[in-house]
Amino acid sequence: MNYPRNAWYVASWSQDLGERKPMGVSILDEPIVIWRSDTCLTALEDRCVHRLAPLSMGRCEGDKLRCHYHGFLYNSDGAVVEIPGQQIVPRQARVRRYAVAERHSWIWVWMGDPGLADETLIPPAIGFDNPDWILGHGFLDYAAEAQLINDNLLDFSHLPYVHAASFKPPASFSESLPKLTATARGVRIERWTESGNAAFGEVRDAGDVYTGYDFLVPGILLMWNGRFPEGTAKAFDYGKPDYAQAVRDVTFTSQAVTPTGRRAARYFFSWGPHRAHGDEALRDVLMTIAGQAFSEDKTIIEAQQRIIDKTTSPKILPSGHDRAVTMFNNLVARMVREEAAAAMASQPNETPRREIA
Amino acid sequence: MNYPRNAWYVASWSQDLGERKPMGVSILDEPIVIWRSDTCLTALEDRCVHRLAPLSMGRCEGDKLRCHYHGFLYNSDGAVVEIPGQQIVPRQARVRRYAVAERHSWIWVWMGDPGLADETLIPPAIGFDNPDWILGHGFLDYAAEAQLINDNLLDFSHLPYVHAASFKPPASFSESLPKLTATARGVRIERWTESGNAAFGEVRDAGDVYTGYDFLVPGILLMWNGRFPEGTAKAFDYGKPDYAQAVRDVTFTSQAVTPTGRRAARYFFSWGPHRAHGDEALRDVLMTIAGQAFSEDKTIIEAQQRIIDKTTSPKILPSGHDRAVTMFNNLVARMVREEAAAAMASQPNETPRREIA
Amino acid sequence: MNYPRNAWYVASWSQDLGERKPMGVSILDEPIVIWRSDTCLTALEDRCVHRLAPLSMGRCEGDKLRCHYHGFLYNSDGAVVEIPGQQIVPRQARVRRYAVAERHSWIWVWMGDPGLADETLIPPAIGFDNPDWILGHGFLDYAAEAQLINDNLLDFSHLPYVHAASFKPPASFSESLPKLTATARGVRIERWTESGNAAFGEVRDAGDVYTGYDFLVPGILLMWNGRFPEGTAKAFDYGKPDYAQAVRDVTFTSQAVTPTGRRAARYFFSWGPHRAHGDEALRDVLMTIAGQAFSEDKTIIEAQQRIIDKTTSPKILPSGHDRAVTMFNNLVARMVREEAAAAMASQPNETPRREIA
Repeated sequence: MNYPRNAWYVASWSQDLGERKPMGVSILDEPIVIWRSDTCLTALEDRCVHRLAPLSMGRCEGDKLRCHYHGFLYNSDGAVVEIPGQQIVPRQARVRRYAVAERHSWIWVWMGDPGLADETLIPPAIGFDNPDWILGHGFLDYAAEAQLINDNLLDFSHLPYVHAASFKPPASFSESLPKLTATARGVRIERWTESGNAAFGEVRDAGDVYTGYDFLVPGILLMWNGRFPEGTAKAFDYGKPDYAQAVRDVTFTSQAVTPTGRRAARYFFSWGPHRAHGDEALRDVLMTIAGQAFSEDKTIIEAQQRIIDKTTSPKILPSGHDRAVTMFNNLVARMVREEAAAAMASQPNETPRREIA
Repeated sequence: MNYPRNAWYVASWSQDLGERKPMGVSILDEPIVIWRSDTCLTALEDRCVHRLAPLSMGRCEGDKLRCHYHGFLYNSDGAVVEIPGQQIVPRQARVRRYAVAERHSWIWVWMGDPGLADETLIPPAIGFDNPDWILGHGFLDYAAEAQLINDNLLDFSHLPYVHAASFKPPASFSESLPKLTATARGVRIERWTESGNAAFGEVRDAGDVYTGYDFLVPGILLMWNGRFPEGTAKAFDYGKPDYAQAVRDVTFTSQAVTPTGRRAARYFFSWGPHRAHGDEALRDVLMTIAGQAFSEDKTIIEAQQRIIDKTTSPKILPSGHDRAVTMFNNLVARMVREEAAAAMASQPNETPRREIA
Repeated sequence: MNYPRNAWYVASWSQDLGERKPMGVSILDEPIVIWRSDTCLTALEDRCVHRLAPLSMGRCEGDKLRCHYHGFLYNSDGAVVEIPGQQIVPRQARVRRYAVAERHSWIWVWMGDPGLADETLIPPAIGFDNPDWILGHGFLDYAAEAQLINDNLLDFSHLPYVHAASFKPPASFSESLPKLTATARGVRIERWTESGNAAFGEVRDAGDVYTGYDFLVPGILLMWNGRFPEGTAKAFDYGKPDYAQAVRDVTFTSQAVTPTGRRAARYFFSWGPHRAHGDEALRDVLMTIAGQAFSEDKTIIEAQQRIIDKTTSPKILPSGHDRAVTMFNNLVARMVREEAAAAMASQPNETPRREIA
C-alpha cells in the first residue's frame, strides 16, 4: 500500500473509544488495539504473541491489557508481563507499540517508528471542545482505496456532476480553477467568488465568498467557508482572509481518510457553523446535506473501484483540474520513497518468534 | 475466457434499455455502457479515460454521454469532445467503441473489431414485434461459466433427470440420439417422435412431433416445436418440416447465453405459441413451466460449477449424447484459435495513456 | 491441508442421514456423497465422471445412485454401470470410493486408502443407543481451520477467559497444569480437584472431582467428569478412576472437529449425564451452557483466524499450557510425513480421464 508511515492517521472519533474498553481498528491493513485508562492512552499491534488472537477482545486491568484467549497480560509498552501457569516470561514476548495521541476529538495513530512521532505534525483540526464551533460528525466505510477518496477531495470539479442534487453548485463551478499553494505537508486549495456567487448553495447576499481548504498527509481536509464584505478577496490578494471580518455563513469542516485495508477505507467528517454565524439547527441542516452528498461520493467512488479492479493495467488521463491531485500524490510518493530508502539504510528490528509447528 | 470475439452477444432485452438512460452491462468481463438517443444506439467501453469511473452512471446529452464524475463528454464514437475547465482535449482521450445492433427485441454487441461486424450474422431469433408469435420472456443470472450452460442446452438427455418435475419427458427420452447437422456457425439438433410420443409433456394426439433447434455462436438457441400429420417425419427425411403443415402445438423459444464474467453468465429466454396454435393463456402456462425448468437447470449447473472449482485439474468423460456439445465446442475453439492467429498477425492498436502516479 | 488421511473423520450425525437420501459433505475440502440403503452404507467422491455434477443431487436406485444431471448410474464401488443412450461403459468410468462406517451415532469416513481402513481405530465415543447416558447433541460450522479448534480443545487454560460467563471456572483454574499421557493416537489430559473445588461450576459438595479426556486423531475429544469420595484421586494415583465409585455429577461429552475446507470446519458435540446421576432436565441445562460456551469459542477462534489471515508469516509463542497442543500437533505432523513417504514409495493410482475441450 503506497501510503506514508510517518504520518498521523485518524483511528477513531474520541468519543467512540470508551474508558477501559479496548477497541480494534485497522490502519494500513494492520490490526491495532487502542485503549484508554485513567493514566494512559495506548495503541498496540492487535495480535497476541501466543496464538495470534486479537487483544482487542481482551480486558483492561489498570494500565494493562489481558488477552482473553489464554490470559497473557500486556503492559502499555507492548511487553507481556504475565503468562498464567508459567513463572518465566520470554523476553521476545512483546508486540509492536504505536505512538498514539488524542487531539481535536480524534484518536491519531503514527504508523512509523514511535521514536519519530512528532505531535506538532498532527493537523490543526477543530474538535468539539472548541466553544466557537457547533459541529456535527460521522463516518462512512468505503469498499475502495483511500487514495481514490483523497483524489476526490482534492478536485472539487466533480461537484456539479456528483452533487447536483445535494450541494447544488452553480453550473459554472467547474469552469474555473482554484488557487493552489504547496505547503509543507500538503496543498492549500482556495476559491474566492466575488460579487455574490457562492460556491455552495444558492446566492443569498452580496459580498465575496471564500472557500479554502488545506489537504494534508496522510489524507486530512480542513476547510473554511465564509462570506465577507465586497472587496475582501482583492484585499487579501485572493488568499486566506481574516475570519473576524466575515459577515455571515462561516462554517468549518474537517475530514479524514484512513486506509483500513487494500480496498477499504474509513472516511471521518465533521461540519458546522461558527457560533457567531449559526446554531444547532443550521448544523443539522448541513449534516443532512453532508449525509446525502457523502453518500453520492461513496456511490461513484466504489463504482470507480470496481471498474479499476476489472482493468488489467489501469491508467488515468489527468485534466487541468487534477493539479492538486497530482501535487498531493507526488508528495505522498516522495514520502513513501524516502521512507523506503531510510528503511533500507537501517537494520530491521523484528521480534523473532517460533513458527507454528 | 475462451469465447470468440467476432460474434454477436445479447446484452439486454430491447425493452430494458430506456430512452436516454445509459445502461451498464458486462460481456466477456468487459464493462460496456449502452445508450439510445433519438438518432443512435451506442455501445462504448464503460470506463472514463480520466479516472476510470463508469460512464453508465453518466447522463445523455443528445447523442452524447457525459461522465458524471468530472464531466467529460463523449460522442458516440467514444471520443471525448469536452473536458470542463480545459480548452484542449487530448487526441488519445477516447474509449473503445463496440458495434451494436437492435434486432428481434434484443440488443446485440459485437465484441470484436467493429470493422468486422456483420449484421447478417445476427442469429434469426424472433422478436415481440413479430405478429405471428405470442412470446413471454425473462432472464436469469448464473454464478457459473457460460460454457456450462451452452453444454446443458446442447444435450437434452438431461431432461428426464433435471426436468422430471417440469417438462416431464417420457422415460425413454434419453435412450435415443437426436439427428445432428453442422451449420456454418453452429449445430442443428433435431428429434422426430413418430406416432404421438411428444418429447415434452403428455401425449395428447396422434401425429409426428418435431423438436428442432439451431445452437449458434456465441450461445444462441432457436427452437421450434410442432405436431404434424402422421408421415410428415418420413416425408421430410427426419429433417426440418414446413410449419404451414403443422396441425397443432407449434411453439418457439429463443434463448441466449452471455458470458458476463469468469464465473458469471446471463441467460435470456423467450417462449410461446404460434398465434394459430395458442393464445396468451398458453403462453403463460409455458412461461410457468419454463420458470420452474430453468431454475432446475440453474441449480444443477451452479452446483456443477462449485465442484469444478474444487477440482484441481477438471476432466470430463463425454458420453454418446455429447456429440453436439463436442461439435459446438470444437467450433468455438477453432474460432478462438483463428482470432488469436489474426491478432498476432496484426498490430496492437491500444491508446497509450499515462500510468496512475 | 496438514491432516492425516489414515483416520476416521466424522461426516455427520447418524440421524441426519436419511434413508435413500444422498447427502453431500466436504472433508479435507473433498466433496463426498454418502447414502444408505437397506443393505449398504456408501461414500463416494461427489463428482460425476461425466461433467462433474455432484452425485449428491442424484437419486438412490436400490444400492445404486443415479446422477441427476444426465443419468449415469453408479454402484457402491464407485463404478458407472449404466450410461443412458450408450451400450458400452468405459472401464475408467469410476469415482473414488471411501471406507465409511456408522458407529456411536456418527457416520465416519476414512480419508485414506480404503484397503487400510481399520474399524478398530474408530474412537470409542458414546452414542444415543447407549442406555446409560442421556445425551443432547448439535454441531457448529466454523469459518476457521480445524487445527485452531483442536488447539483450543487441547488447552483448557482458556476457560477462565473465554468461558468466564458460561462454564465459570474458579479463578485459579489456569494456574495449575493437567496431567498428560501420550496414547497411541492422541493425548490423555486429566485433572483431579481434591477437597471439593470443581473445575466447572460452583462447589456443591465435598469430594474429589475428576475431569479427564482423550483427544484422538483426527480431532476427537471424549471427556468424562465425576465427583468421587475424598481420597479417590490419591487412590487412583491421579489417573482415571472407576466410575462405579462416583457419588454424583458424572457426565460425558464427545466432540469431533472435521476440517471441511481450507478455512472451514464443522464441530460436532454431545453432552449429558449418566443416567444414575442426572435426567433429561440436567441434560437440557448442560446443553444450554454448551450452546453459550461453544459460541464463545467460535467467536474468539474465528477472530484469531482473521488475524492469522492478515499476518504475513504467522508465528506462535507456546506457553507451558501448550504441552498437549504440541504433543498432538507433533503426532499429526508425524502421521502426515509418514503418509507422504508411503505415497512417494507407491505408484499413483489415478483414473485417467480426458481434459475438457
